[in-house]
Amino acid sequence: MSQHALLRSVRGLGIPGTARKEDRKTKLKVASPPPQEDRHDHFAVRNGVRCAGVHLIIDLHGAKRLDDIEHIEATLRRCVEAARATLLHIHLHHFQPSGVSGVAVLAESHISIHTWPEAGYAALDVFMCGSADPDKCIPVLREAFSAKRVGVNEILRGQAD
Amino acid sequence: MSQHALLRSVRGLGIPGTARKEDRKTKLKVASPPPQEDRHDHFAVRNGVRCAGVHLIIDLHGAKRLDDIEHIEATLRRCVEAARATLLHIHLHHFQPSGVSGVAVLAESHISIHTWPEAGYAALDVFMCGSADPDKCIPVLREAFSAKRVGVNEILRGQAD
Repeated sequence: MSQHALLRSVRGLGIPGTARKEDRKTKLKVASPPPQEDRHDHFAVRNGVRCAGVHLIIDLHGAKRLDDIEHIEATLRRCVEAARATLLHIHLHHFQPSGVSGVAVLAESHISIHTWPEAGYAALDVFMCGSADPDKCIPVLREAFSAKRVGVNEILRGQAD
Repeated sequence: MSQHALLRSVRGLGIPGTARKEDRKTKLKVASPPPQEDRHDHFAVRNGVRCAGVHLIIDLHGAKRLDDIEHIEATLRRCVEAARATLLHIHLHHFQPSGVSGVAVLAESHISIHTWPEAGYAALDVFMCGSADPDKCIPVLREAFSAKRVGVNEILRGQAD
């Protein structure tokens, strides 16, 4: 991908209205991004490497509160804030008798979580472009779920050729 | 994670009703999973390795139709079908003037897509547990977006200790 092409995506990308609505079916609120806000998916620079975005693959082991959907939603929202990202849409699903899957769609890409409470395990990925800082999510997650062990793998997506 | 803990998650996990609803705000239909269907996030076995799920990190280069939100939604649905997964919720967001972000929440985890049409680049991830086969999504994506180059990295999430 050329740097020029990536740079082009920075300019004047308004956020249309559909995702600003509240998803009332699931009683999950969706933030209203600033109407004139640019799309936040322009290139990122990570350790000197220019790329479309930084994708963190995060594993929580020995973790707690993995079946508490409200806590999980609040934690995803804290992650968005900590990373200085913009929430467009959030959806969580609680399985019976246990387990939660959730996704937050961001102006800067997404966060996902899938939990196995009975195993104390959660699989997350945090993909962020532009100036949002996905690393800021890690201490939030570690603390929120009292994780004994946190594994993080970093992938630089769409590196410029 | 112990094998026992993973096995426990297979049993009798009903899918509650909220995600069966149509998301009318975005006019995106959501499938109705069978009421007695188990949660599909039990362990997977990949090349003899037992894990919580297979996570494919997929990059499309030289790709087309990356700004066509209806085509992207239809393609995600085709991926779900091809992998024999169960769709719980789907949400796509179109940026102005170009670019789409989309997520499909599955009984088996999720699919996400983020497109940079001006660069011919799309970043996807496909995370599937249980018997769903994420590899089946790759030819669907390659064909749907006429990708000149498809990069795939596989991560086995939550491998049994």
